Amino acid sequence: MSLLQQIHSPADVKKLSIPELSLLAEEIRERLIVGVSRTGGHIGPNLGVVELTIAMHYVFDTPHDSFVFDVSHQAYVHKLLTGRADRFETIRQPDGLNGFMLRTESEHDSFGAGHAGTALSAALGMAVARDMNGGDEHIIALAGDAAFTNGITMEALNNIASSTKRLIVVLNDNAWSIDRNVGAIASYFHKIVTNPTFVTWHDRAVDLIERIGGKAAKHVAQKAEGAAKGLIGPGMLFEEFGLNYFGPIDGHDLPLLIETFKFLKQQNKPVLLHAITQKGRGFQPALEKQKKFHGLGPYDPETGETKPTGQKTYSEIFAESLTKLADSNDRVVAITAAMPNGTALDLFRPHHPKRYFDVGIAEEHAVIFAAGMATKGYKPFCAIYSTFLQRAFDPIVHDVCLQNLPVVFCMDRGGLSGDDGPTHHGLFDISYLRGVPNIVHMVPKDEDELADMMYTAMLYDAPSAIRYPRGIGPGVAVKEKPVALEIGKAEVIRDGHDVAIFGLGALLPLAVTMSDRLAAEGLSAAVINPRFAKPVDRECIAAYARQCGLIVTFEDHVLAGGFGSAVLEALNSLELQVPVIRIGWPDEFIEHGKVDALREKYGITVEAAMKQARPFLDAIAQSRLVAH
Amino acid sequence: MSLLQQIHSPADVKKLSIPELSLLAEEIRERLIVGVSRTGGHIGPNLGVVELTIAMHYVFDTPHDSFVFDVSHQAYVHKLLTGRADRFETIRQPDGLNGFMLRTESEHDSFGAGHAGTALSAALGMAVARDMNGGDEHIIALAGDAAFTNGITMEALNNIASSTKRLIVVLNDNAWSIDRNVGAIASYFHKIVTNPTFVTWHDRAVDLIERIGGKAAKHVAQKAEGAAKGLIGPGMLFEEFGLNYFGPIDGHDLPLLIETFKFLKQQNKPVLLHAITQKGRGFQPALEKQKKFHGLGPYDPETGETKPTGQKTYSEIFAESLTKLADSNDRVVAITAAMPNGTALDLFRPHHPKRYFDVGIAEEHAVIFAAGMATKGYKPFCAIYSTFLQRAFDPIVHDVCLQNLPVVFCMDRGGLSGDDGPTHHGLFDISYLRGVPNIVHMVPKDEDELADMMYTAMLYDAPSAIRYPRGIGPGVAVKEKPVALEIGKAEVIRDGHDVAIFGLGALLPLAVTMSDRLAAEGLSAAVINPRFAKPVDRECIAAYARQCGLIVTFEDHVLAGGFGSAVLEALNSLELQVPVIRIGWPDEFIEHGKVDALREKYGITVEAAMKQARPFLDAIAQSRLVAH
Repeated sequence: MSLLQQIHSPADVKKLSIPELSLLAEEIRERLIVGVSRTGGHIGPNLGVVELTIAMHYVFDTPHDSFVFDVSHQAYVHKLLTGRADRFETIRQPDGLNGFMLRTESEHDSFGAGHAGTALSAALGMAVARDMNGGDEHIIALAGDAAFTNGITMEALNNIASSTKRLIVVLNDNAWSIDRNVGAIASYFHKIVTNPTFVTWHDRAVDLIERIGGKAAKHVAQKAEGAAKGLIGPGMLFEEFGLNYFGPIDGHDLPLLIETFKFLKQQNKPVLLHAITQKGRGFQPALEKQKKFHGLGPYDPETGETKPTGQKTYSEIFAESLTKLADSNDRVVAITAAMPNGTALDLFRPHHPKRYFDVGIAEEHAVIFAAGMATKGYKPFCAIYSTFLQRAFDPIVHDVCLQNLPVVFCMDRGGLSGDDGPTHHGLFDISYLRGVPNIVHMVPKDEDELADMMYTAMLYDAPSAIRYPRGIGPGVAVKEKPVALEIGKAEVIRDGHDVAIFGLGALLPLAVTMSDRLAAEGLSAAVINPRFAKPVDRECIAAYARQCGLIVTFEDHVLAGGFGSAVLEALNSLELQVPVIRIGWPDEFIEHGKVDALREKYGITVEAAMKQARPFLDAIAQSRLVAH
Repeated sequence: MSLLQQIHSPADVKKLSIPELSLLAEEIRERLIVGVSRTGGHIGPNLGVVELTIAMHYVFDTPHDSFVFDVSHQAYVHKLLTGRADRFETIRQPDGLNGFMLRTESEHDSFGAGHAGTALSAALGMAVARDMNGGDEHIIALAGDAAFTNGITMEALNNIASSTKRLIVVLNDNAWSIDRNVGAIASYFHKIVTNPTFVTWHDRAVDLIERIGGKAAKHVAQKAEGAAKGLIGPGMLFEEFGLNYFGPIDGHDLPLLIETFKFLKQQNKPVLLHAITQKGRGFQPALEKQKKFHGLGPYDPETGETKPTGQKTYSEIFAESLTKLADSNDRVVAITAAMPNGTALDLFRPHHPKRYFDVGIAEEHAVIFAAGMATKGYKPFCAIYSTFLQRAFDPIVHDVCLQNLPVVFCMDRGGLSGDDGPTHHGLFDISYLRGVPNIVHMVPKDEDELADMMYTAMLYDAPSAIRYPRGIGPGVAVKEKPVALEIGKAEVIRDGHDVAIFGLGALLPLAVTMSDRLAAEGLSAAVINPRFAKPVDRECIAAYARQCGLIVTFEDHVLAGGFGSAVLEALNSLELQVPVIRIGWPDEFIEHGKVDALREKYGITVEAAMKQARPFLDAIAQSRLVAH
């Protein structure tokens, strides 16, 4: 029986000896590498926190104590140690474990996440509540170095020292895996890590903590800390924020981590532990290709090889198209908020390195920075996932749209994201953008139309947004030269006079299928590619409303405030009354799973539309019989 | 002729001698105090930046150079110096100058604002664009100390040093006006200002800059700076971010400011100037009551007295109600993002000081912090203006609603804000929240219903939001004990069978008036107080749709995705067809002005509704004749 098999809860972790914990770490690494090779997932970050997580569970007691993990894609080890090992191979699979912390999944998941930068704020809320409750539990926030490029983390830092005396922040610094310097914070961390004075001090201090323990060690540590401060000030940034800084320490040294956590547990001031870890630790392919193995699909657990993807993703089409636009227009610039890989802008970068900007996990800054550039004649394309762009909603309203500046938002992962689950589904961008004046919202039916829309956005002298799905599209080749689309003009794919079916973006094929089904019934159903969720094509809607007995809308978006809702508003303004069937996501958060299965489950299907349409179809058929 | 009368553009500022500039400052103060006494406005902040703004215009050349002011409520002096002095008394008046920077108002307003924390990001975008263009212009961002409690400012700081070599950030530190310590940043600034070593160094350094000027001074300053760093590290925070720190200096010393700006202009590294200013400088009442004179309505220019307001505002009702709720429920806590005055939470604070949290201008942190507290059994009420809550949209989705945590959003200034203009109108909260699952969105018809809704929200174990208008309501007394409302249930104010009129919140009186008008025409019009924008009362809508020939909706919100749109969706789901007239704000940004006049201009009136309704009313009357 393996050690991991003996771990049914964190209490079992505490029964192991230090050498056994080291063996456990090895077992966990093996389990992660093999398990995730089948399911896909965030393998690199989890291999980096094996020892950290074991040490945390050895020293603290969840669910009495609370762990708040930033983004929480590094919670696999935590899941393995909190009674979910037997289901670990279901991670990110339909009906299986979620790839992130999820409050409804386990009492050990005290706070869910999926977007970065929230851990310190949530943990501080818990700590303050704990203080008010007179509780004795510990709150431990674990955040990666990248989280410190995010403003929310800094807002929380500003509030910690004045709000609580007990909070443990663990800075999980993948120093060696940063492939480029995202701003001042990153170089600040680097400076600490590479400063010989402090490393020396630190080694001595930890040595003392280990050997002496308790109060004496605390005294020595504080003294050493004070001395070190006078010299160069490592951790000074955190000290200025009122946190006691400890580190940097080796985040893979289990005995050291355990002793350190025991020590930190006794502090009466908020503390920050700076732990240096190695992303992908113990898996050579992940160490060699850090970016690839941050998060990926299935791979070979021996070689790390992945199946060639073949067809280009929407992200890749976006990056190639932007490169071409930038080739011919020196005003085009690209901005990403720490997602060069996910948005594929790393393909753009080598072609136009000076017109590529990665601002860190700073979506709001990204958008206002873009607005600033736009005032000086540039045409910024901000590539941010639909769900992450939610964070920049106010800058979109206040800085871009109110000033009518020509910034383009390229919303990758627009629509259901699938395996990543509710934190990553991009199901709200039409409803949150549709109320905002001046912005144009486009949704391409295929890869080639994405290129056309980007070209259209480049020429358009006002704000615009384009949403496109995760992964691959229908595989339509992108033509040599893009064409400009008329703003607010839909494309009629197939004419018809009984029913008009609007299939937005990726759901256009459902409209075609439904039209075919109706044709088989002898009904003539138009198929329309709306292209624009804002402004909708009122002329087109009016024309079909006047000639058809039913309108159907398909959208990969929530129904509340979505594209179908825009069609209802248009019909209302036009004072036209025609039955409308709106197919889209219901008013609830959608779990993770396979896109097709979830569409089936929630009725985003031709069958669901046909069922709802049936009474109207019968009436249409009836009226045609009468007419004949 | 006064000096100010001779200033038609910044070029005229440069013609004055230093003593004349000091006289100009005096004239400007007088003009500000008298002018704003009639219009109301942000008098305190502007009195604080008189010398700073004069010095900036003396040394730099807008519009070639760009000034980006954070929030930009401190731009009055700038407006006076950039050709708008003759219109200054129209500020915040209908068709007059806007109270903030506005790109469409002047070429000297390079970037508009109204929300805090955007200046550094926008300025960096401009600086990077300037570098790419090979331009020689200067970009100067002016931001108050409070802006540094906002995450976007920190995100920008993180990016500055790696992005440009030329950017001037002016930290306008109202040290003496901070009435409490909002976190670590504030105490950090305080530490710098009160540190004797550094103040001494600084005095010497500036003295040198003044006397020697040019390269030598630069050398001395840098050396002194280096020395100072080793001692204590004032400005270390900014130095860690890669900015050269200069200061603190007296922000009212005109000659010193001019020399310093001339010096900073020549730097080849991004710089931060820490200027200490006094909010309300030169106006005794403003110095004595800093908070009151930050921004206010008309006052007596001699005594600073304002007319007693009499009727309580919605904000005050909110604060009193929350105090009562907190009296009887120890789980109730109040959170504000640096708006204790604006939200009236400063009335709550003395009663429950330990359950009051001001987190700084950190709306995102506020919401996630609230979510964290909610996981530990607390019931946080976040009081944030509707327009500022836009900034926390992602935390609302990702941290609160997805986890279904019982956080209450009290959205002050929901609806048109009037004088403050487009940056402050709260016209989008229904459309941005309606698409989000799990949240309840309430809108009270009067003060007493606000109290009921807060009580309802307290009892409701899931996320909720309440929007209420700026200023006073109808003046309905709040009853002793609030009652819980049924979620999603509308209130029928007056029954009727020809027309059903839904008047959301503050617009309920329009529904009543319209009903009266229709009664005079012999038509029976129901008046409904919807109470809930989400979920809407489908039963009520269905019942009236079945019996009436027309539905009318009034809302103080944009029509796109708003309440009327929710009614259309409900009718659509119910498969009911009835004409609907939706009255609300059009799809454009609304300028500042008087609420009534703007409603008139944009057709948010009974007249507009009657006009649109006329054909339907005739048809209803006709059908009744036929029926008889």
